[in-house]
Amino acid sequence: MKSRAAIAWAAGQPLTIEEVDVQAPQAGEVMVKLVATGVCHTDAFTLSGADPEGIFPCILGHEGAGIVVEVGEGVTSVAVGDHVIPLYTPECGECKFCKSGKTNLCQAIRATQGKGLMPDGTSRFSLNGQPIYHFMGTSTFSEYTVLPEIAIAKINPAAALDKVCLLGCGITTGIGAVLNTAKVEPGSTVAVFGLGGVGLSVIQGAVLAKASRILAIDINPDKAEFAKQLGATDFINPKDYDRPIQEVIVELTDGGVDYSFEAIGNVNTMRAALESCHKGWGESTIIGVAGAGQEISTRPFQLVTGRVWRGSAFGGVKGRSQLPGYVEQYLNGQIKVDEFVTETRPLEEINEAFEDMHAGKVIRTVITF
Amino acid sequence: MKSRAAIAWAAGQPLTIEEVDVQAPQAGEVMVKLVATGVCHTDAFTLSGADPEGIFPCILGHEGAGIVVEVGEGVTSVAVGDHVIPLYTPECGECKFCKSGKTNLCQAIRATQGKGLMPDGTSRFSLNGQPIYHFMGTSTFSEYTVLPEIAIAKINPAAALDKVCLLGCGITTGIGAVLNTAKVEPGSTVAVFGLGGVGLSVIQGAVLAKASRILAIDINPDKAEFAKQLGATDFINPKDYDRPIQEVIVELTDGGVDYSFEAIGNVNTMRAALESCHKGWGESTIIGVAGAGQEISTRPFQLVTGRVWRGSAFGGVKGRSQLPGYVEQYLNGQIKVDEFVTETRPLEEINEAFEDMHAGKVIRTVITF
Repeated sequence: MKSRAAIAWAAGQPLTIEEVDVQAPQAGEVMVKLVATGVCHTDAFTLSGADPEGIFPCILGHEGAGIVVEVGEGVTSVAVGDHVIPLYTPECGECKFCKSGKTNLCQAIRATQGKGLMPDGTSRFSLNGQPIYHFMGTSTFSEYTVLPEIAIAKINPAAALDKVCLLGCGITTGIGAVLNTAKVEPGSTVAVFGLGGVGLSVIQGAVLAKASRILAIDINPDKAEFAKQLGATDFINPKDYDRPIQEVIVELTDGGVDYSFEAIGNVNTMRAALESCHKGWGESTIIGVAGAGQEISTRPFQLVTGRVWRGSAFGGVKGRSQLPGYVEQYLNGQIKVDEFVTETRPLEEINEAFEDMHAGKVIRTVITF
Repeated sequence: MKSRAAIAWAAGQPLTIEEVDVQAPQAGEVMVKLVATGVCHTDAFTLSGADPEGIFPCILGHEGAGIVVEVGEGVTSVAVGDHVIPLYTPECGECKFCKSGKTNLCQAIRATQGKGLMPDGTSRFSLNGQPIYHFMGTSTFSEYTVLPEIAIAKINPAAALDKVCLLGCGITTGIGAVLNTAKVEPGSTVAVFGLGGVGLSVIQGAVLAKASRILAIDINPDKAEFAKQLGATDFINPKDYDRPIQEVIVELTDGGVDYSFEAIGNVNTMRAALESCHKGWGESTIIGVAGAGQEISTRPFQLVTGRVWRGSAFGGVKGRSQLPGYVEQYLNGQIKVDEFVTETRPLEEINEAFEDMHAGKVIRTVITF
């Protein structure tokens, strides 16, 4: 099968659009025709070369939605024609992690996924006979991609695929961090650092959790308006203050917030987020991905006096069993997605989509095939 | 009232036994005749000068037990003759913290307590007219001490005071960190770093929580025997390995422990304890108090992949409402205390008690008056 795909040849290089060969799905695998994919900071992170796990040449992309076109031997949970969202965090239901009831971090195919390969240790993509690596097990920057069955969530076909692709990463990550990881209670105060797609979705999550006060923090004042539309009660620009932002927040909130979230990937902001929490019970959740080798730090007194430091990946959401519910919540109006799509572009303009993201011009660009 | 007391005149100096003047309890205050007091590392920490909040001259001691000898105006919850344990973490029941239901860190008298003073801003101790400061609101190295009513737990008089004084800090701190802070579930795996009185009590707590495996870690091999008597299943000496102890523990436990505890106050061990936790759900609780200005650090990836970092003070135990229950558990044999008293000495030998503790010769020395 031939497929148009954007190939990342090397760190720091623009993507090029090529017609690649995609091998048919093997046993337990599924081929999906992507209808749309978001462009996310994690794609840019790996493309930049900062991701120590980055392998080139590869096909990036992990925030997609599409339709099943072919299933391999033994696949029973999805069929040709199903509308699906690829999952970079699979859900096998059988591993120690899935069975623990405590985490969404299924490890069934972690080893091969980290190496850019399918579970059998090979790639389904090639160009002129040269293998091209997969990325995050999803590679949604290809019109056709192959995924393990356990890495596919079947969703309601009523949902527009060029919108709910964003539930494949950013929006779900933000909302899930609030509802699944931090488990914010009604009446709580919340602070979110960084108002990209994930941070803005933390605001959505906080509204769903009935938080009483939602502080939205970003150094870009243009973010204020949409943050408030989504439900933020306060917009705070750290550049407006000449002292640590955690001090400002502790003062504004009579001792600190009940829950804070870091959605940037900056280790200094992670510390500020923790130290913005209320003594005795404040909990801070790290969502952002920091650069290789970077470390977080704080005085242990922050924890001994009752603050909790945790993290969240894909919002703690189990993709196969829980993501379809997020799509239903979108359909019935509880979760906003359309508003996050600033622009839609064809695959050929994917490099422009990266540029717009870096320039802070868009929340999300959706690429359509 | 005259009282024999051990006075700390300055950082790093031995204590001297003096006959101090103790003022009668004021409104809302209680005078207690101490029967016994433990000597704890926190006393040594402040005496060393490393505690930035240390104020001299003062009367140290915070792990005591005694009998009420006089009550001030308005005191209703305790009466002369009651057996009590002084609380360095009070419980007013009225402040935001007490009412939160989320923490034991009552803040009602935090400001004055941190300054070595009673809630009215003055001291009850003096020597030749010179005020002597209180310490942790308790000053149990004096035969007579004065405490706010909210800083006293009334206990079952059947309990031997020269034993249950240790429930005023170390033993309760260790057990409570397991039961109240980490909330260890039956069948969990547990690792505890540092086998002093607190760390050994973490083992007790893990046994009470029905942990399936309890790893006890210390560089002193003499600690192994008692740790195993208390219920540790494995003793690990980091000096027996030439690689990071977290790697050893992750390997031994098929991915890491469910819960770890740091009971030393060493920021490097705090990191090792976190990184010994299982991906996806492992939780690490800091109990030890680090030196002034020291910081903990780790890669944020540790948290994003599901580990949780928290801390515990006085085991998360609310002193007035919960500590009496610990005394009952001691009386019915569920909590071991007697075994933690290595030696009993008169007040006059308190400097020797500090020396024995520094030499690692004792779990606890109990001072009797």
